Amino acid sequence: PIHSKGWIISPMDSRYRCWETFMIVLVAYSAWIYPFEVAFLDSSPKKEVYIADNIVDLFFGIDIVLTFFVAYIDRTTQSLVRDSKKIAIRYMSTWFLMDVASTIPFEALAYLFTGKIKVSLSYSLLGLLRFWRLRRVKQLFTRLEKDIRLSYFWVRCARLLFVTVFLVHCAGCLYYLLADLYPHEGKTWIGTVNPNFRETSLWIRYISALYWSVTTMTTVGYGDLHAVNTVEMVFIIFYMLFNLGLTAYLIGNMTNLVVEGTRRTMEFRNSVEAASNFVGRNRLPARLKEQILAYMCLRFKAESLNQHQLMEQLPKSICKSICQHLFLPTVEKVYLFKGVSREIRLLLVANMKAEYIPPREDVIMQNEAPDDVYIIVSGEVEIIDCETEKEIVVGSLQSLDMFGEVGALCYRPQSHTFRTKTLSQLLRIKTTALIEAMQTKREENIQILKNLLQHH
Amino acid sequence: PIHSKGWIISPMDSRYRCWETFMIVLVAYSAWIYPFEVAFLDSSPKKEVYIADNIVDLFFGIDIVLTFFVAYIDRTTQSLVRDSKKIAIRYMSTWFLMDVASTIPFEALAYLFTGKIKVSLSYSLLGLLRFWRLRRVKQLFTRLEKDIRLSYFWVRCARLLFVTVFLVHCAGCLYYLLADLYPHEGKTWIGTVNPNFRETSLWIRYISALYWSVTTMTTVGYGDLHAVNTVEMVFIIFYMLFNLGLTAYLIGNMTNLVVEGTRRTMEFRNSVEAASNFVGRNRLPARLKEQILAYMCLRFKAESLNQHQLMEQLPKSICKSICQHLFLPTVEKVYLFKGVSREIRLLLVANMKAEYIPPREDVIMQNEAPDDVYIIVSGEVEIIDCETEKEIVVGSLQSLDMFGEVGALCYRPQSHTFRTKTLSQLLRIKTTALIEAMQTKREENIQILKNLLQHH
Amino acid sequence: PIHSKGWIISPMDSRYRCWETFMIVLVAYSAWIYPFEVAFLDSSPKKEVYIADNIVDLFFGIDIVLTFFVAYIDRTTQSLVRDSKKIAIRYMSTWFLMDVASTIPFEALAYLFTGKIKVSLSYSLLGLLRFWRLRRVKQLFTRLEKDIRLSYFWVRCARLLFVTVFLVHCAGCLYYLLADLYPHEGKTWIGTVNPNFRETSLWIRYISALYWSVTTMTTVGYGDLHAVNTVEMVFIIFYMLFNLGLTAYLIGNMTNLVVEGTRRTMEFRNSVEAASNFVGRNRLPARLKEQILAYMCLRFKAESLNQHQLMEQLPKSICKSICQHLFLPTVEKVYLFKGVSREIRLLLVANMKAEYIPPREDVIMQNEAPDDVYIIVSGEVEIIDCETEKEIVVGSLQSLDMFGEVGALCYRPQSHTFRTKTLSQLLRIKTTALIEAMQTKREENIQILKNLLQHH
Amino acid sequence: PIHSKGWIISPMDSRYRCWETFMIVLVAYSAWIYPFEVAFLDSSPKKEVYIADNIVDLFFGIDIVLTFFVAYIDRTTQSLVRDSKKIAIRYMSTWFLMDVASTIPFEALAYLFTGKIKVSLSYSLLGLLRFWRLRRVKQLFTRLEKDIRLSYFWVRCARLLFVTVFLVHCAGCLYYLLADLYPHEGKTWIGTVNPNFRETSLWIRYISALYWSVTTMTTVGYGDLHAVNTVEMVFIIFYMLFNLGLTAYLIGNMTNLVVEGTRRTMEFRNSVEAASNFVGRNRLPARLKEQILAYMCLRFKAESLNQHQLMEQLPKSICKSICQHLFLPTVEKVYLFKGVSREIRLLLVANMKAEYIPPREDVIMQNEAPDDVYIIVSGEVEIIDCETEKEIVVGSLQSLDMFGEVGALCYRPQSHTFRTKTLSQLLRIKTTALIEAMQTKREENIQILKNLLQHH
Repeated sequence: PIHSKGWIISPMDSRYRCWETFMIVLVAYSAWIYPFEVAFLDSSPKKEVYIADNIVDLFFGIDIVLTFFVAYIDRTTQSLVRDSKKIAIRYMSTWFLMDVASTIPFEALAYLFTGKIKVSLSYSLLGLLRFWRLRRVKQLFTRLEKDIRLSYFWVRCARLLFVTVFLVHCAGCLYYLLADLYPHEGKTWIGTVNPNFRETSLWIRYISALYWSVTTMTTVGYGDLHAVNTVEMVFIIFYMLFNLGLTAYLIGNMTNLVVEGTRRTMEFRNSVEAASNFVGRNRLPARLKEQILAYMCLRFKAESLNQHQLMEQLPKSICKSICQHLFLPTVEKVYLFKGVSREIRLLLVANMKAEYIPPREDVIMQNEAPDDVYIIVSGEVEIIDCETEKEIVVGSLQSLDMFGEVGALCYRPQSHTFRTKTLSQLLRIKTTALIEAMQTKREENIQILKNLLQHH
Repeated sequence: PIHSKGWIISPMDSRYRCWETFMIVLVAYSAWIYPFEVAFLDSSPKKEVYIADNIVDLFFGIDIVLTFFVAYIDRTTQSLVRDSKKIAIRYMSTWFLMDVASTIPFEALAYLFTGKIKVSLSYSLLGLLRFWRLRRVKQLFTRLEKDIRLSYFWVRCARLLFVTVFLVHCAGCLYYLLADLYPHEGKTWIGTVNPNFRETSLWIRYISALYWSVTTMTTVGYGDLHAVNTVEMVFIIFYMLFNLGLTAYLIGNMTNLVVEGTRRTMEFRNSVEAASNFVGRNRLPARLKEQILAYMCLRFKAESLNQHQLMEQLPKSICKSICQHLFLPTVEKVYLFKGVSREIRLLLVANMKAEYIPPREDVIMQNEAPDDVYIIVSGEVEIIDCETEKEIVVGSLQSLDMFGEVGALCYRPQSHTFRTKTLSQLLRIKTTALIEAMQTKREENIQILKNLLQHH
Repeated sequence: PIHSKGWIISPMDSRYRCWETFMIVLVAYSAWIYPFEVAFLDSSPKKEVYIADNIVDLFFGIDIVLTFFVAYIDRTTQSLVRDSKKIAIRYMSTWFLMDVASTIPFEALAYLFTGKIKVSLSYSLLGLLRFWRLRRVKQLFTRLEKDIRLSYFWVRCARLLFVTVFLVHCAGCLYYLLADLYPHEGKTWIGTVNPNFRETSLWIRYISALYWSVTTMTTVGYGDLHAVNTVEMVFIIFYMLFNLGLTAYLIGNMTNLVVEGTRRTMEFRNSVEAASNFVGRNRLPARLKEQILAYMCLRFKAESLNQHQLMEQLPKSICKSICQHLFLPTVEKVYLFKGVSREIRLLLVANMKAEYIPPREDVIMQNEAPDDVYIIVSGEVEIIDCETEKEIVVGSLQSLDMFGEVGALCYRPQSHTFRTKTLSQLLRIKTTALIEAMQTKREENIQILKNLLQHH
Repeated sequence: PIHSKGWIISPMDSRYRCWETFMIVLVAYSAWIYPFEVAFLDSSPKKEVYIADNIVDLFFGIDIVLTFFVAYIDRTTQSLVRDSKKIAIRYMSTWFLMDVASTIPFEALAYLFTGKIKVSLSYSLLGLLRFWRLRRVKQLFTRLEKDIRLSYFWVRCARLLFVTVFLVHCAGCLYYLLADLYPHEGKTWIGTVNPNFRETSLWIRYISALYWSVTTMTTVGYGDLHAVNTVEMVFIIFYMLFNLGLTAYLIGNMTNLVVEGTRRTMEFRNSVEAASNFVGRNRLPARLKEQILAYMCLRFKAESLNQHQLMEQLPKSICKSICQHLFLPTVEKVYLFKGVSREIRLLLVANMKAEYIPPREDVIMQNEAPDDVYIIVSGEVEIIDCETEKEIVVGSLQSLDMFGEVGALCYRPQSHTFRTKTLSQLLRIKTTALIEAMQTKREENIQILKNLLQHH
C-alpha cells in the first residue's frame, strides 16, 4: 500500500514525504518572513524578498493541485481511498477554500492593478491568511510525537520552542510596527532610547524589538525598553496576559514530561524502599538483607524482559509466528525432540512461554508436582538435593539442557530442586500440553520416550 | 420535567436559561464598573453611569422576586421540587439576605436623604456587597465545565482568564485610588511620571493603572511605574504575595489540562515502544516487525470502538434497547434467521456483542471448539485452510454473512480458519445462547435448521 | 484515654491542647521578632521588647518542665505511655537539649555579666537557636493537614503562606542589616534612594526592606531598589537562587492541589464523553441518547452513595454494629418478619447490603432465577409484566415493601420485572442467606411462611 | 564479587569508589575553572591556575589508564566481566576517544610549540571538550537517585541546584567575555555602570557578572545591569529562552517531588473523609463514629506493617529463609509444638503468614468454621462468649499463646469469639496445612495431640 499507482500518489510514498518536508520548510519561511515584511520592509520593500514570496506562493499553488492526486486514509474503515473523485470531494469540502485563499498573491495582484509595489495596510492584513499554513507544522509535530524513533521529550520541546520563538518574533515585529506608525517619534519605546531610530540599520532595529519581546515574554522585564504611549501600553497588556497563559502551558508540558521521565526511577525506589523497611522492621540478618535488595534491583532491571503482557495483546496469528521464530531453533536442538516431526515441534512451540528468571530463584522445588517442563535457552541452572538438612549441589545444567521432563513423563514428584545460578532465559511448557502433543501421533510418542530412555 | 407548570418555573426552561444568561452579563458589568466608579469617577460622577447602575439594580431586584417561583432539584431524592412554600423556605434560609443586601441602591438612598450624588468612601464600601453577585459567574463556569459539548480545556482557560482579568482590573483601580487620595501629588507612582496626572484624560489614567497592574501580576516588573510612598509599598506587598498564589494556581491548572490532553498520546507511545523493544530484543524479522507495529497502531485507533466497558455500566433495560436498535436490522437480513419470529430474534439480539476486529486477526482457528458464532456487519473475512503446511485462502465472506454456525449446530470442530482482511465489525453470539434460543419453540428450531441445510 | 491521670497529662487533654496552641502563638511571635530585633533595634534597643522576650522565654522554660509530665504514644504498640521514667528518657534522648539551648536567655545572662543591654553580633547569632522552635509550627500544620474537618487546600495554602511570609520577613531584615553595617552609607541599596536613611522612621525602613524582599521573591524586580555594593550582590544571588526553589515548590504544591480538586470533574467528563461518543457513533435515536446521558449523570452524583468498598475495609465487629443500627428498624417493620425473634433478625441484618439504584433500572428481570430478595427503604419500584410484546405496569411498591421473596421461597423464576421509578435505596439479601437463617429454628420458619401466605 | 582480583579492579571496590569520588571533585573543579579562566584570566593568566590545570589533567590521564583495569557489568547477563581484553574493547569502542581528547593539555602543547602562555581564542575553544567530563557528574547523580539511603527529594534538588549554579556561572563568564571583547568599553553592560571596569578587582567583576546572570535566570530582572549593544542583546535573547526551558524543568521536577511527597497524606485524607461522609449520611451514633474513624486512622498507620505484597514478589527460596528467621523462634516456644522435630517445624513455618491486626477486630467469630489457627507473637487477644445477647469476656490470651487449634484439630466450629485488645501481631496457619504437616510422620502427630490434651 506504500507505493503509488497510476495518477494517485500514496501518502506514504517516500517522494511525497520529501515534498511534504520541503513544503513545511516553505511554511516556516513564509510564516517568519510575513510579519518581518509588514513591520520592517513596508517603507523600503526589497525586490529579492518580493520575488522569493511569489516563488513560495507558486509552490503552494502546486501543492494544492497535487493534493487532488493524493490518496487518503478513511477513518471508519482504516483503509486507503484511491478514488480520485472521493479525494476531490473530501478536499473541496474541508480545506480547499482556505488553502486557495492563503495562496492568492494579493500583493502581486495589487501591483498588476495599481502598478505600485508598496501596498497599504489593508492589503497586508490579507496576508494574515498565510498563517493558515501553520496547521501543516502542527500536523508535522503531532505525527512526530507519535513516532517512537524520536524521543517524545525532545519532539515536545522542539514543538514548544517553535511556538515560543514564532510568537516572540511576531510580537517583536508588531511592537516595532506600533512605534513606526506612531506620529511622535520621540514618544515611542524605541524613540526614547534611540531618537532617530528610523535611520539605524535594520539589524539593530530587529534585534531591539526581539530583545524587548523576549525580555517581556520570559517576565525578566529589565525595564530599559518599556511602553511609553497608551497604544503601546494596551499592546503590552494583551501580550503579557497571553504570555502568562503560554508560560503556564510551557511549565505544564514540562511537568508532564518530567513526571513521565522519572516514573520508572520512582517505582524502583518505592519497591526497594518497601523491601528495605521490611528488612529493618524485622531485623533480618545481613546476608538475607543483601539477597533481598539484590533481588529487587535485578527484578527491576530485568522487568522489561518479561513480555507476556505484550504477547497477550497481539492477535493469535502473530503470536504463532513469533513463537516459531524465537523457539523453533532451540527446540530442534533439545535431545528429547530429536527425530521428531516438524508438525509436533510447531505444536510444542505454540504452547511455550519464555521467562527470564533472576539468579538464585528456585524454578522447581523438590517433591513438587511435575506441572511444567523447562528448556534452558541461556544461563545456568543448578540441581540441588534438599533431602537432608543441608542443600547439596549435585549437578549443573547449561544452555539447551532440559529439566523437569523426567518427573513429567514418569508421573513422579520432582526428584531435585532446580535453582538458577545466573540470570537465565527458560522456555516453559505445561506437562499437559507436552503429553497432549506427544499423543497426536504414535510414532512420535515412541521416539520421544526413546530419547528420554537413551539420555538417562 | 423541562417545561414550567403554573406559576412555578422549571430551572431547565429555555426562557429562564436566557434570563440567567442575561443576569450573568449584568453581573459581569456591575462587577467591572464598581471598582472603576470608586477609583476614577468619585471626583466627577457621570450621570449615565449612575442611571445604568440603578437599572441594573432593578433587574437584580426582579431576579430576587423571580427566584421565589423557580423550582429546584432536591439533593437527596434527585427530583424537582415545585412546592412554592418549600422553594421560599429554601431561598430565605440560604442566599436571600445576601442577595437583598447586595441589591439595595445605597447611593440612591443616600441621594434621597442627603441630596448629593457624590457619596463618601464609607458608602462606597457598602458597594463591595455587589461582589457577592460573582458567585453566579462561578456557578456558570462550574456548569459549563460539566457540559461535554464544550471543550474542558477552553472552558477552564476562560474561567482562569476571567478571574485574572477581573483581579487585574480591581488592583489597577485600587492602585490609582491610592495615588488619588495621597496628599503629595508628586510623591505617588503616577505623579513621578506625570506630575499633573489628575488633569490627563480618564483613558490614559485607566490604561496606566491597568498597565502597572498587569506588569506586576505577570512578574514582568519593568520598573517604569513603581511604588513611591509607604502606603503604595504596603499595597504592592499584598498584591504581589496574592499574585504568587494566583500564578501558581494558573500553572497548576494548566499542568492538569496538559497532563489530561497528552495522556492518550503517552499511552500510545508506551505501548508501541514496548512492542518495538520486544521486536528489537528478540531480533524478529522485518516482516513480523511491521505486522506487530501496524497492529499496535491500529489497535490504538480502534480502541475507542470497543465499548463493552461502557455497556456494562448501563442498566439492563437500556442495554436491551441499544442492542435492539443496533443489531435487529442486521439479524433480520442474515440467512439463518429468515422466517424466524421476532420473539426469538429479540432473544438472540439481547445476547449479542459487537466487536471491532483489526485486519489479519484470526477470529476462529481451524480445529477449535465451536464456542462462538459470528455475523459480519461490515468488513471482509477470509476463509483459510491450514491443514497442509501452507495456508490456502478458500473463500471470502462479506457483510451480512455468517461463520462458525456449521460447527456450532453440527457439534463439530471448526473446519477452517476465519481471518479478517480489513477492519471488521462482527456480532458475536455464544453457541450455547444460540442453541438455547432455538429450543424455546420447536417450529423455530426446524426453520433455522432448514435455513442451514438450504444454504450449504 | 483522653483524660489525664495523676501527675501525667494526656496529650489529647483539651487544656493541654490549649496550652500547645498558646505556645505556637509564642513561637510565631518569637520567630518574627528575633530577625526584626537584630536588624532594626540593635542600635536602639527598646525596653518593652526586651521584657516581652524574657517573658516568652519563661513560658518556653515552663513548657520544657511540663513536657516531663505529658504522656506519649508509642509507635510500635500504638498505645499511650504514662510511665514518667519512660517519658523522661524519651524526651532527654530526643529534643531536650535543643529545647533548653533555644530557651537560655543569652541576652539577659550577658547583661548580668557585662552590665550592658546592647550585645555584640556574636551573642545575636546564638539567638538563631530560637528558630529551632519552628518545628512546633511544622508539627501543627502536619496535624492540621490530617484533620478532615479542615479543607486540605486551605491548610496547605496557609502553610505555604506562613513559610513564604516568614522568609520574606527574614530576608528583608537581613538585607537592611547589610545596609546598616556597610561603612559607606551612600553606597547601599537604601542609601542611594534615601541618603540619610538611618534617620527615617522605623516603619518606613521596615516597609522598604519588606517591599524589596517581596519584589525580589515574586521575581517582579522593579529595579527601584537594587544591589549597589558587592556584599549586597552576593546576598541577593543566594536569595534569588533560594527563591527559585521556593517558587517551584509553591507551584508544585498548587499543581498537586488543583489536580486533586478537579479529579472528580475530569472523571465525570470522561465517562459522559465516552457515552456521548458511543451514542454518536452508533447513531442511536434521541430517546435512547437522553436516557443514557441522564443515567450517566445520575450515576456520578449517586456514586458516593454506594459504600461497599468502605464497609469491606472495616473489621467484622464494626460492620455488624453498623448493619444493626441501619437495617434493624427497617426489617422490624417488614411484613415477612412480623413476630420473628430478634436473634433471627440480627442474623438477617448481618447478611444485608444497602444499595442505591438510579431510576429506571431493572432490579429483577422477569423469568430470572430468584437469587436475591429486596426490601425498599426509600423510593418507588414498579412491577412490570413483559410477557407480551409491550411492557405493562401492574403495580407499584413503596417504602418498607418487599419484592422477590415469592420467587425465593417458592423456588420459582421471578414472575415480574421490578424496575425503580425514582432513586431508591434497597436492602438486598441473598436467597440462600434468607433460607439458611429461616432454618435455624423451626417455629421461626413456620412464622415467616405464615406471613407470606397471609400477605398474598 | 566486591573485592578486586589480580590486576582487575572491581567497580564496587571501596578504594575505587574513593577514587571515583575524587575524580568527580576534579571534574567539578575543572568545569568551574574553565569558563572562569577564559573570561577573566585570559588577559592576565595566573601561574598557580596554570599549574593546577596541568595536575588535574594528569589525574584524568591516570584515570584513562586505570579504566582499562576496571571490570564492568554486562547488561545482558547481569554478571561482572573481568576479562581485560573485553574491558579494553568495550572502552575503546565507547568513550576512550572523547576521554583522551578532553584530557590533552592543548595549552601546555601550545606553550611547548609557541613558547607563549597566553593562547588565542581558538585554543580556548578546544577546552570546551573538558565539558565532556561532566557526564561523570550525571552518572553520579543517576546513581545517587537510586540509592535509597538518601532522600530522593534532596538528591534531586542537589542535582537541579548543581545544573542551575553551573549554568549561571557559565552565562556570567560568557557575558563578561562579551563586554571584555567589545571595542567600545563604554557601550557595554558593565561599562555603562562602571566606565573603567577593566581596572576594578577580579572579585567585583566576577560577582557583577554572576549577579546579572542570576537576576536574569530567576526572571527578577532589576534592570540595573542590562544589554547595551546588539551582541549582548543576541546573547541575552538566547540565554532567556534557554532559561524559560530550565525554569519550566525545575518547576516540573518540583511538582513531581511534591506530588510524590504528599501522596500518602492524600490517600489518608480520602479514606478518612469517605468514612466520615458515610457516618454523616447514615447518621450513625457517636460511639460507632469514633470507632470507625479510630480504626481508619490506625489502619493507615499500620498499613506498612502488612507485607504480603512484598513477600509475594520475592522468589520462593528467599521467602523460606525469611520465614525461618522470623517465625521459628516463636513456634519453638508454643505449647502445641513442644517435642516436635525441626523438620515439621520448618514445614509449618513455611506455611505461616504474619498479620498485624488493629485493636477490637474479631479474628475468629463464634460458630465459624475452623479454617485457621493463630499464634500470638505480640499484643493481647480477648476470648469472648456471644451465645447470649450480651458479650461476656471469659479470658485473655498473651504473647506465645495459641487460639483456634481446638476447633481445628477436633473438627468443631469455634467455641468463642477471639477479639484483639491491642494492636497484635499474629501468625496464621491454615488448618489444612497444619493437619497435612502433622500427618507426614506418625510419632509427631501423636506428640502434637498429646500436647493438646495435656494443655486443655
